[in-house]
Amino acid sequence: MPDISGTRAADHTQRPLSQIKAVVFDTFGTVVDWRTGIAREAAPFIARHGLGVAPEAFADGWRRRYQPAMEPIRAGQRPYVPLDTLHRENLVDLLAELAPGATWPEEELSELTRSWHRLDPWPDVIAGLARLKQRTIIGPLSNGNIALLVNMAKRAGLPWDVILGSDISRAYKPHPTAYTATAAALGIAPAECMLVAAHNGDLTAARRAGLATGFVARPREHGPRQTIDLAPSDDWEVVASDFVDLAERFGC
Amino acid sequence: MPDISGTRAADHTQRPLSQIKAVVFDTFGTVVDWRTGIAREAAPFIARHGLGVAPEAFADGWRRRYQPAMEPIRAGQRPYVPLDTLHRENLVDLLAELAPGATWPEEELSELTRSWHRLDPWPDVIAGLARLKQRTIIGPLSNGNIALLVNMAKRAGLPWDVILGSDISRAYKPHPTAYTATAAALGIAPAECMLVAAHNGDLTAARRAGLATGFVARPREHGPRQTIDLAPSDDWEVVASDFVDLAERFGC
Repeated sequence: MPDISGTRAADHTQRPLSQIKAVVFDTFGTVVDWRTGIAREAAPFIARHGLGVAPEAFADGWRRRYQPAMEPIRAGQRPYVPLDTLHRENLVDLLAELAPGATWPEEELSELTRSWHRLDPWPDVIAGLARLKQRTIIGPLSNGNIALLVNMAKRAGLPWDVILGSDISRAYKPHPTAYTATAAALGIAPAECMLVAAHNGDLTAARRAGLATGFVARPREHGPRQTIDLAPSDDWEVVASDFVDLAERFGC
Repeated sequence: MPDISGTRAADHTQRPLSQIKAVVFDTFGTVVDWRTGIAREAAPFIARHGLGVAPEAFADGWRRRYQPAMEPIRAGQRPYVPLDTLHRENLVDLLAELAPGATWPEEELSELTRSWHRLDPWPDVIAGLARLKQRTIIGPLSNGNIALLVNMAKRAGLPWDVILGSDISRAYKPHPTAYTATAAALGIAPAECMLVAAHNGDLTAARRAGLATGFVARPREHGPRQTIDLAPSDDWEVVASDFVDLAERFGC
């Protein structure tokens, strides 16, 4: 763990776990391994069209467009559209880079866009969530839309109590509304809600919005050469090694 | 079954069950027995304050205010507020009728309002939903808000895949938006979504909005002298005796 004494917010009060009524989860990267899943889903398309790119590089290129695509919506310059729409636009943009001037069958684009509905969880996720669910409400707090998240949960067996997609808050993290609207939808105070994420930046924004925070590192999210988010950057209420460890912190 | 040949919409096409991707449920009356539950929850309050009313009559009086309270919101004369808020206002109104001029401790009003979060399902519900969940997405399509519905599900063990409260559509049934926004949130066409309800009026509105429909009679919803919704009023795609029968119609 890094020395975090200098970065800790002076006025922050740690939230005791006993007051937590809901634990909500960042999804892409924290719950599911998007890179491996997208590479697997895209490989046949890449081969069929002779794109000559490694499936993992295709996944990285698609994901690289994720944060910039949400920026105009966060800034209020574009009305809210669901993540399925942004994934589709980003795919078209990536394909234009890989094969300038080419056109693609509509059905293949739709199907490939839905790859984000078909991602597998990290190995500890199902066991950890099943235990935690006995103690508290669990759900995703994701930039994904409800349709994406329910299809993902159904396929992967994620035992969510509730699906809190971005189409409830109509805001994209790290906009404060994404966090506060989630607690409000659950009828609880922000301090009664914990966000668990593998991304320190997400937790920083959640804490600013009044939520409790939990960190679980996913050191292979970005592949074998990942350099970011390998350790907690602040004194999050919980730092757990995986979701089973997280459940144990809650006495489950 | 009544003769329904004269009431059938001439242009209606029956939706085959094979195309259904989600089955959503009216909640109060169809999934849970609100009258028995509210009577049980209110009985100590009634006794403590000597209100001199039968708990079941108290439940009926509270529920009688339900539809009228939503009318101004459906008509666009009042901005959307969650059902928890309407339940609270209706409780205050009922108490003013039962004990004019009396005042009540804030904490007791809040606690009693949350009675609607603590209702038990009809005996067939859990078994039927568990089976249906293997074949299709299941969730409430209720006028209840998400917080109410998730607390109810958590306590009662309702195995929903997704919670579709009125705070997603910000519309109250039978407004068409309540139905169409639900299908849209799931990323499916209205015809791929079936509403199951014990109330013919709800199904009529759902069909008008393009959804498939399923009827399960709950002849004791309003107590032993119920006269309405004892039988289907139209040729709903499914008429089932209970939720287990419903699951069997889907081959589960």
